[in-house]
Amino acid sequence: MKAAIFKGKDTIEVGTRPEPRIEDPTDAVVRVVRGCVCGSDLWYYRGINAHKVGSIGHEYIGVIETVGPQVRDLAVGDFVIAPFTYNDGTCPACQAGYQSNCLHGGAFGNGDTDGGQGEKVRSPFADATLVKIPNPPQGRFTDAQLASFTALSDVACTGYHAAVSAGVKAGDTVAVVGDGAVGLSAVMGARKLGATRIIALSRNPARQAVAKEFGATDFVEERGDDAVQAVLRLTDGVGVDAALECVGTDQSIETCADITRAGGMIGAVGVPLYEKFEYKTLFWRNIGIKGGVAPARQYIPELLDDVLAGRINPGLVFDYSTDLDQVADAYAAMDERRAIKSLLTVSNP
Amino acid sequence: MKAAIFKGKDTIEVGTRPEPRIEDPTDAVVRVVRGCVCGSDLWYYRGINAHKVGSIGHEYIGVIETVGPQVRDLAVGDFVIAPFTYNDGTCPACQAGYQSNCLHGGAFGNGDTDGGQGEKVRSPFADATLVKIPNPPQGRFTDAQLASFTALSDVACTGYHAAVSAGVKAGDTVAVVGDGAVGLSAVMGARKLGATRIIALSRNPARQAVAKEFGATDFVEERGDDAVQAVLRLTDGVGVDAALECVGTDQSIETCADITRAGGMIGAVGVPLYEKFEYKTLFWRNIGIKGGVAPARQYIPELLDDVLAGRINPGLVFDYSTDLDQVADAYAAMDERRAIKSLLTVSNP
Repeated sequence: MKAAIFKGKDTIEVGTRPEPRIEDPTDAVVRVVRGCVCGSDLWYYRGINAHKVGSIGHEYIGVIETVGPQVRDLAVGDFVIAPFTYNDGTCPACQAGYQSNCLHGGAFGNGDTDGGQGEKVRSPFADATLVKIPNPPQGRFTDAQLASFTALSDVACTGYHAAVSAGVKAGDTVAVVGDGAVGLSAVMGARKLGATRIIALSRNPARQAVAKEFGATDFVEERGDDAVQAVLRLTDGVGVDAALECVGTDQSIETCADITRAGGMIGAVGVPLYEKFEYKTLFWRNIGIKGGVAPARQYIPELLDDVLAGRINPGLVFDYSTDLDQVADAYAAMDERRAIKSLLTVSNP
Repeated sequence: MKAAIFKGKDTIEVGTRPEPRIEDPTDAVVRVVRGCVCGSDLWYYRGINAHKVGSIGHEYIGVIETVGPQVRDLAVGDFVIAPFTYNDGTCPACQAGYQSNCLHGGAFGNGDTDGGQGEKVRSPFADATLVKIPNPPQGRFTDAQLASFTALSDVACTGYHAAVSAGVKAGDTVAVVGDGAVGLSAVMGARKLGATRIIALSRNPARQAVAKEFGATDFVEERGDDAVQAVLRLTDGVGVDAALECVGTDQSIETCADITRAGGMIGAVGVPLYEKFEYKTLFWRNIGIKGGVAPARQYIPELLDDVLAGRINPGLVFDYSTDLDQVADAYAAMDERRAIKSLLTVSNP
């Protein structure tokens, strides 16, 4: 089958991989309908984080093509969303709602496992991993809905996880550091949890427009110390109840630390590339920090309800769309900041 | 007046300081009834943390001797508990319940300000800082009650803060790292919040006895990696919902990180002396960390109710008692681990 192959820094090509088949009785094979490119894929592409040569792409939606003999809740033809990690659903981490830390789980598209940037994926623990999308009332889903379903595979859940981890609640003032697809999704997550004031740190008009659609009430265009001063000015010198860290650099996490009020929380979902940040700088101001790799599987059902009801439109983060053959361009568009996030059409539902 | 004077490493002496007087209209002068020695005082005594030469001791209870013209809620003769930091009660940090981060607050006994290891203390913002103890139903409080009131000045609240910051809730499994007075108080705090299993890391029989009285259900006597393995064995390999860090060293915080389940919380109140610990080690397991300098003023009223109703007995952490003239011995007893915590009788109520 056709699949994107990561060959090293700056090099993604369309190649071939073996057709996936049922290996374990709880597996399903999914024909990919939409995939996309993650901000973390871009770190690999840029050579900032290491990635094995081979399969890539951990976000996808698709139609089930084959199921193993122990798959009970899903059937051939079901339309599903895959969280970006697979999980058994039974281990203590899964039971606690942290399926991304499943003791027997793993990642899609890690060089060896099938990736979402490919025609088909073998999904382990299909019942526990995949979330079925109900049949559309009018016979088919719109492109906007397909994009939103794809966003639920990772980025919408990761942004929501930042807000959940920070304990955002009704009436809070929240700042979001990072205006990539995750940061924009964190704005959406903060609004979902009832934040009344959401300050987005962004200087890019296109991203500001999405942030506004997602619920941002204020924008700060400065960076570093100037951004800190701007947020403090907006909050009468107090700082925010929660800062959502959606970048992962020393500057971004230090900005979060400096804009959070005493006793507030940082929700951290940016893959941590920071080297200097120390927790003890938070200690003296009673600021907490929580976050990590989002348990997308935990959030997808709830966010899917929101999408189907039209309450949220997380697919707006996709402002570039192409097909699997042009996957290299999908990466380049993000690398060159021509796109917030690239959607890949792989097949039809 | 007579007061303990910190003169440098290993040297605490009884000396004299100027009699305190009302300086600001919101001040009160308190005649100290009981003071005590804090674990953090011991860090100064041992030369691990710096402390200015001069007054020392930030924990005390006492009787109000004079009030400034703007003190409204307290009167001469009132018996009060002082939190270890003073606060104005009106700034945003105070309003948010983090009085220890008051924008206009400060610490007692910092070398310059009057200390609780002395005959009298000027308390700024008396109405906002001091908590009145109601008159005793039988005319006088017992020594055990006086000890418990004194514990509320810092250590009981600091231990409780570890449990509150970690979000401990009914049914949780909690581990407490550190068997000093704060660690023991954290056991009490975890029980108050409904933890059903409380694992205390302690190998000292006297401390284990207090921990058991406070609610510990299990003991781990090992340290370091062995302690981690022991806690994991006790929790079917899962780890605890919350680990309460009551020491502040690299070993103790790393133990907390290693024994907490995916998605769990570390409540951190040990003064951070760690140098190697990095937050990002928690990120990958979705573990959060929150804590800091406890807002004792926020917790005292609630814990005082518990003491007066006989539900808690936080004064059990005092296993050594002497008077102000013997303050050097009070420190030595803790330094030599003859005592968990030393109480100082300064005057009668």
